[in-house]
Amino acid sequence: MNVSGLLTSAGINIAICTVLFLLYSVLRKQPGNVRVYFGQRLAQRKSKGDGPSLIERLVPSASWIIKAWQTTEEELFAVGGLDAAVFSRVVIFSIRILSIAAIICIFLVLPINYFGHSMHHTEIGLESLKVFTIGNVGHRSRWLWVHCLALYIISLCACALLYMENKHLTNMRLAYISGSPQNLGRFTVLVRAIPWSGKSYSDSVTKLFTDYYASSYLSHQILYVPGRKLVNDAEKMYHTLNVPRMSKHCGSSMVRCGLCGVNEKSIRNPSEKSTFAEDIHDFADDFKKKECPAALVFFRTRYAALVAAQTLEHVNPMLWVTEMAPEPEDVLWANICVPYRLLWVRKLGIFIASIAFLIFFLLPVSFVQGLVHLEKLEKKYSYLKKLSGKRNFIFDMVTGYLPSAMLTLFLFCVPPIMIISSAVEGPVARSLRKRSACLKVLYFIIWNVFFANILSGSVFERFDKISSLKDIPAQLANGVPSMAVFFMTYILTSGWTSLALELMQPFALLLHWLDKGLFKGKNVLSCESQTFPYHTELPRALLFGLLGFTSAVTAPLMLPFLLIYFFMAYLIYRNQFINVYVTKYDTGGLYWPIAHSATIFSLMLMQVILLGVFGLKKSAVASGFTIPLIVCTFLFHLYCRQRFLPVFKRKFAQVIMEMDKQDELSGKLEEYHDQLQSGAYCQFKTTSKTSSTSGNMEDCENGKLDSPLVAQVKQSDSGDHDRLQDPDGSKPGLFNAPLIFTSELPQL
Amino acid sequence: MNVSGLLTSAGINIAICTVLFLLYSVLRKQPGNVRVYFGQRLAQRKSKGDGPSLIERLVPSASWIIKAWQTTEEELFAVGGLDAAVFSRVVIFSIRILSIAAIICIFLVLPINYFGHSMHHTEIGLESLKVFTIGNVGHRSRWLWVHCLALYIISLCACALLYMENKHLTNMRLAYISGSPQNLGRFTVLVRAIPWSGKSYSDSVTKLFTDYYASSYLSHQILYVPGRKLVNDAEKMYHTLNVPRMSKHCGSSMVRCGLCGVNEKSIRNPSEKSTFAEDIHDFADDFKKKECPAALVFFRTRYAALVAAQTLEHVNPMLWVTEMAPEPEDVLWANICVPYRLLWVRKLGIFIASIAFLIFFLLPVSFVQGLVHLEKLEKKYSYLKKLSGKRNFIFDMVTGYLPSAMLTLFLFCVPPIMIISSAVEGPVARSLRKRSACLKVLYFIIWNVFFANILSGSVFERFDKISSLKDIPAQLANGVPSMAVFFMTYILTSGWTSLALELMQPFALLLHWLDKGLFKGKNVLSCESQTFPYHTELPRALLFGLLGFTSAVTAPLMLPFLLIYFFMAYLIYRNQFINVYVTKYDTGGLYWPIAHSATIFSLMLMQVILLGVFGLKKSAVASGFTIPLIVCTFLFHLYCRQRFLPVFKRKFAQVIMEMDKQDELSGKLEEYHDQLQSGAYCQFKTTSKTSSTSGNMEDCENGKLDSPLVAQVKQSDSGDHDRLQDPDGSKPGLFNAPLIFTSELPQL
Repeated sequence: MNVSGLLTSAGINIAICTVLFLLYSVLRKQPGNVRVYFGQRLAQRKSKGDGPSLIERLVPSASWIIKAWQTTEEELFAVGGLDAAVFSRVVIFSIRILSIAAIICIFLVLPINYFGHSMHHTEIGLESLKVFTIGNVGHRSRWLWVHCLALYIISLCACALLYMENKHLTNMRLAYISGSPQNLGRFTVLVRAIPWSGKSYSDSVTKLFTDYYASSYLSHQILYVPGRKLVNDAEKMYHTLNVPRMSKHCGSSMVRCGLCGVNEKSIRNPSEKSTFAEDIHDFADDFKKKECPAALVFFRTRYAALVAAQTLEHVNPMLWVTEMAPEPEDVLWANICVPYRLLWVRKLGIFIASIAFLIFFLLPVSFVQGLVHLEKLEKKYSYLKKLSGKRNFIFDMVTGYLPSAMLTLFLFCVPPIMIISSAVEGPVARSLRKRSACLKVLYFIIWNVFFANILSGSVFERFDKISSLKDIPAQLANGVPSMAVFFMTYILTSGWTSLALELMQPFALLLHWLDKGLFKGKNVLSCESQTFPYHTELPRALLFGLLGFTSAVTAPLMLPFLLIYFFMAYLIYRNQFINVYVTKYDTGGLYWPIAHSATIFSLMLMQVILLGVFGLKKSAVASGFTIPLIVCTFLFHLYCRQRFLPVFKRKFAQVIMEMDKQDELSGKLEEYHDQLQSGAYCQFKTTSKTSSTSGNMEDCENGKLDSPLVAQVKQSDSGDHDRLQDPDGSKPGLFNAPLIFTSELPQL
Repeated sequence: MNVSGLLTSAGINIAICTVLFLLYSVLRKQPGNVRVYFGQRLAQRKSKGDGPSLIERLVPSASWIIKAWQTTEEELFAVGGLDAAVFSRVVIFSIRILSIAAIICIFLVLPINYFGHSMHHTEIGLESLKVFTIGNVGHRSRWLWVHCLALYIISLCACALLYMENKHLTNMRLAYISGSPQNLGRFTVLVRAIPWSGKSYSDSVTKLFTDYYASSYLSHQILYVPGRKLVNDAEKMYHTLNVPRMSKHCGSSMVRCGLCGVNEKSIRNPSEKSTFAEDIHDFADDFKKKECPAALVFFRTRYAALVAAQTLEHVNPMLWVTEMAPEPEDVLWANICVPYRLLWVRKLGIFIASIAFLIFFLLPVSFVQGLVHLEKLEKKYSYLKKLSGKRNFIFDMVTGYLPSAMLTLFLFCVPPIMIISSAVEGPVARSLRKRSACLKVLYFIIWNVFFANILSGSVFERFDKISSLKDIPAQLANGVPSMAVFFMTYILTSGWTSLALELMQPFALLLHWLDKGLFKGKNVLSCESQTFPYHTELPRALLFGLLGFTSAVTAPLMLPFLLIYFFMAYLIYRNQFINVYVTKYDTGGLYWPIAHSATIFSLMLMQVILLGVFGLKKSAVASGFTIPLIVCTFLFHLYCRQRFLPVFKRKFAQVIMEMDKQDELSGKLEEYHDQLQSGAYCQFKTTSKTSSTSGNMEDCENGKLDSPLVAQVKQSDSGDHDRLQDPDGSKPGLFNAPLIFTSELPQL
């Protein structure tokens, strides 16, 4: 591909982006689209009453850019949680380091590459883009020390910036922990693999925790097997409860949240004896059969919960497995009853399946690379020649725009598959499922977009097989500069245009319009609020970081494209966090260790590739200087792991104890205890009838914010992403009746 | 090498073994050698008064074998601790599985190998030993299913036996934990990287632990930098203390163990004011400067200590690092003040150095393999021909006996090097240092004895380089059967003869005699009691297990040699545990996870090698059946890791709490508190003057068991193996005087 091919691709993408931006700035002002573009504001009731005038509405404007720019980190943290702050820091870090790299490489390295003596220069428009890469520098060139110097400066700056980010985010994480005393998950331990004692799991739990944690044990909540049968039983129970006389005996907790507030004692020992009590007793016996050997155990203090979660309770480590419970709205109820002994089998199965998927995906990648190297394939297979009779716009598009667009399309199917496979692994928290998917997608795209493209590209280039593992560094050193052009078009397509699509939300908009047109705004197809798709956006940002590092010295022309991407990302993601996405759960910054490791990997890969290039160019001095740099970078990584990683992996006694003390003094601890005991963790939720048919959108939220009553339903129903795994979440109209009780029976 | 070469080697080794056994059975009866052969009994005061008569003394006998045979596992556990029991179980497991393998392979596999049709059979004496290996079976042989069947039976039996051993040892470990309530280390947490608060480290510790662990914190003991300067200060202090009037003020704790009992408060607030108190005060201020930022913190209950050790105390994970402290006699005082922030650098350095050593050791291995393949080298380099003019006894010895003897000699230097490098890594317990060395030696000999010999052997065999990583499985499949003969001679030399030497203890005996002759029995050169060298013996047993597994199906003739080795090991090691070695510290069975992993590795290596062999023999069916076996073995390993490993890695709330409860009821808890506060952990020990010159033996213990007073010295002085790292331990005659106080001043 030459400069004109690149320009074709750039032209197409810039045109698409511009149109999408303009459309967005108009569409967002239409009152009918509020649900699509201001989900977050709706959830926070920030939406203003007065909209812009009709003329204003139809004129494209850049006001959203200004607003996004003015948003401070504190606002972002308040709205999107620590995860949003981490994501924003990743983008800012990338902008900083790529700016430094761009300045150094474009003014120092690029001229040396261009005036290297290996190639003959033609007119700039027809010039092959390879003249701008390190491939154009001659063997044993005395100018390679400039590349080595640039490598040193970039590496040192990256390490320094990374250290600063680590420090900043560590402090933010500590502030996050101490700043969220209302998190009930910190009082709660999830106990799994409870042994069957003969009576019930509940009795076993009570016995163990009153025996060993007498002073700090508060109460517990047994978990139930989700499934159809239970739902039928629950319906039966509902009818039983619906008998008028029960209204005196049954506590508000039961009413408030379906089954989970059912305190066994209150059922077994009603204040006055009656036939109803016997009915209930029978039912409770029936119900016990579906108990699963897991429970949420609540403690009086956060520290006691932390200690219980850390300790091995039983001499058989496969029994009484404890871990900190996720926050109530973060729990993935569908996985909570997965037997603990099966977890490792599931993990192993998913690991193997992921590797198989990784390998299978090489097929589309090879096809894409075949298009990129059409020119060379033609020479080999003459029948392809008619396909590109002469070099024209079509040919430029087929080799320039099409491959990266196809790769982007192929990659669209990856995140949903990874979310499903992460759910099968059996995490008990949605945030952890998303994090696990993020990690999988990251491995996937680094392998399939970066390595597979470079290596298969080299294969097409030279038509010989990679004979052994030893060739791979040389192949990379050769491949990265020569594949730079393909990656530039990939940045244009997957970066720029995807960002524009992210802003414009065409899919959500389409569904919203269909809803309006076909179902009269009943929100059958569309969804109200989504959570931020970290598992697609973070890996993409990190991949572009990797591209930036690896191409900085070898093919500096890529840096401006990347910088534009990151600047746009900075503005657009801020806008999306503030306006569109709702934060229902977060990992508490657990994405940062992923980003840190990926950055170090990129940094070291850049150094290894340059070591390979220096080797190919037979520059012993430059190679010699690169090796200590690799060692130092690795040492830096090890140090950071020691210094910062534990903050993200473990909890701190000191912080937790201080919080406990303060809450005890202020009396808030009692309040939290009440919340826990009155059913903050609600396994079977009350869903309103309107949600009955919404099974087709994954990332959806049901119900409308019309009346306070339905709003109450909504607050307890946070079922995004879970429709696929949590069949009970979408079970219609099961416990909508008890909600009406709430107003009728405010207390016991 | 042919059968006669093997017989030469076997003859030499059997002769050596017989002589050594006979010598041992005579020497052990001589009263003068009691110290060498009955160190353990001496330590336990079990030595009988009446020895055998003069004639009995000079007649070789097998009584020790009978005694060793009759020893039960309980006795072994009582004498040698859990580690001895683990070692014994490893030997028993090996005997069991190798017996099964031997029966199957010798009766089923060996005939098929011998009557395979690839070779022409000659007279049995001149027959190459290769006819007994799988190499003799033809390509696409229809008999390969027998090998596959044997592989299945061995694998399944091994997994079943391993499961049983795991279960048995898990129970033993639990019994060990609950059966040793007197272990003071369980009340103690080692705190490192204490930040400097401006006053002293001691104040910081007091503040933190009274703030956060008010109910369970007992007291603490600041650690001091070991070194010359301190020793001078200590001498000064000793002279100060030696003033007669101090006898009234200074507690027994100080007297009992040098400096460690110095309770700062007792010095600062003496019961009556005097000039002496001021002196002490000045000295204490002086002394504080050498405090190191580490302390032993004592808790009221084991559970509180466990919780404190598990929790991250400070928001900076590099400060206030807590871990469970080792037992008092297990502490490696020299490492206790290594700054925590340097630990990872040390570990990394040692890791790199170990790899370098591993690679460097390929030189002697290649030399050894050159000797083994002398026959083939001759053909290549004609000048070697005169070396072996004709095939005679010398040639048999050079190719048969010499290589394995040389390898064994080269390997002698490895364990001491590994002990030193493990000490540099910075473990705070001697048992952990030995365990770390054990792991290093294991990796080392598996790589250098097994892989390096096979791969370099193949290189000599075929005179071509290993061109890529992909060739390695094929090389192994080819190499294991062809190297079987070398390994047989290695078993004879390194196994049989080493065992005989272990029994005979020629080195210790020689030193003891020299002592008697030159120094009139003052124990200048010899040592009194040694601890069992797990770091040399366990890797050897595991290596032989590996050889057994990998050769079982491919070269079954090796199995009888291995079985004899393990039978002898069973008897000899029991004898040594009961009579010779003293158990001063143990890891509590932490050698078992190493043995388990090594066994699984051996099992899977056997399967992979046979997969390679079946591939070479072009037997698709047998290969096809082997793959699921490999997968299942790996799944079994993962299951065992889940089910059993945590018992060895973590502590159990349940067991620990029960112990606490019982001790509280019986009032023993107070007793333990007193022990802890009166200086159970004694950093600067009282050593008697006789030890002044004993710096040349590493594994030594000083002093004599003549009087009760010196016996008391001995008990507090357990300095084996530490002379190298702990210069203060051998500092002569520093605190021998205060011991005399003990009898003068029995109480405060």
